[in-house]
Amino acid sequence: MNNLIEDLNWRYAAKRMNGQTIPQEKLDTILEVIKLSPSSVGLQPYNIVVISDQDTKDRIFKEAAPQQQIPEASHLLVFAAWEKITAQQITDYMNLIATTRGISVESLSKFQESVTGGILSRSEEVNFNWAARQAYIALGHALVAAATEHVDATPMEGFNNAKLDEILGLTEKGLKSVVIMTLGYRDSENDALSNAKKVRRSHEELFISL
Amino acid sequence: MNNLIEDLNWRYAAKRMNGQTIPQEKLDTILEVIKLSPSSVGLQPYNIVVISDQDTKDRIFKEAAPQQQIPEASHLLVFAAWEKITAQQITDYMNLIATTRGISVESLSKFQESVTGGILSRSEEVNFNWAARQAYIALGHALVAAATEHVDATPMEGFNNAKLDEILGLTEKGLKSVVIMTLGYRDSENDALSNAKKVRRSHEELFISL
Repeated sequence: MNNLIEDLNWRYAAKRMNGQTIPQEKLDTILEVIKLSPSSVGLQPYNIVVISDQDTKDRIFKEAAPQQQIPEASHLLVFAAWEKITAQQITDYMNLIATTRGISVESLSKFQESVTGGILSRSEEVNFNWAARQAYIALGHALVAAATEHVDATPMEGFNNAKLDEILGLTEKGLKSVVIMTLGYRDSENDALSNAKKVRRSHEELFISL
Repeated sequence: MNNLIEDLNWRYAAKRMNGQTIPQEKLDTILEVIKLSPSSVGLQPYNIVVISDQDTKDRIFKEAAPQQQIPEASHLLVFAAWEKITAQQITDYMNLIATTRGISVESLSKFQESVTGGILSRSEEVNFNWAARQAYIALGHALVAAATEHVDATPMEGFNNAKLDEILGLTEKGLKSVVIMTLGYRDSENDALSNAKKVRRSHEELFISL
């Protein structure tokens, strides 16, 4: 079987983790994959909080996200979308393109106009939802990367976003948490779902071929 | 270098494709990876339209999405989220879990209650945005899978969703297109960006470590 498919069949959303720390090189790979994740117009309108500090994980578990795998995880990743998109962020991005590619910012003026016009004409709410979707592409990348490293990863939405933002000081940074993910190792003995068969709709029910 | 990171550095959003068809086994792998993509409570609240028919790609290009890579692609994938989430869909999902795992539907009653209560208490708009985000996790998986198969993949948002839904008859199916992706092979000669350096914010600018 294809390795990637094998790895994705191995993965599941562990509800209990065993407290073991994942090696730094595996974490580095997962973060690099997140960094390489594409986004609309390339803006990457999000930041990712990478939490290994046990006290912070414990506090999040107690106050914002009562999922047992959080204090038991090696790392907790918080995907936080930009609350607003500003002209300055777009300018910074154009400067980054120019520097990376060794071209002038002026040569990007049409692209900048199109990006600025497209984004800044929309409401803050539309832009936030758009930014959140880009963060979910990154989440998708992170999940695959963790599976290929045989690191367990559990994505979670059902948490108190406002409380989590407060604990992490995200509001002051212009960020809002949208989805979180634990990284660590499954605790098979204590997780009833660790041996459960994966449930997915059939090819015929999921895909429409034309 | 790690293979996955190498593959993701190889990939870029091709703006021109060369018309070549991708082998069936590569398409199958990408679709299987999409199928394995996780989603909130496991519901997979989306369908994916897989278009190889040239007339359909041409019509979409002319009427809904004027990106040149669409008629030049081997396949166009349309990620369509469920417009509404219904009690029936949740019941079908519970039946699927029971059948897959060889357990009784009754044993899932608490889970069903929690999923039904959580989802059906929210507005249709909130649920649609939630479904769209799940589709973006699948998009993230598809992008990584294509990269590992060295198939070019270009995700796109800037299209006429209503027109695309009309062309594909999605409304009657309770679906709304949220993001599309071409699969095929880059046309390096005609794509100015094919040799451009990848632009990403630095580790320090993207990640916040605690």
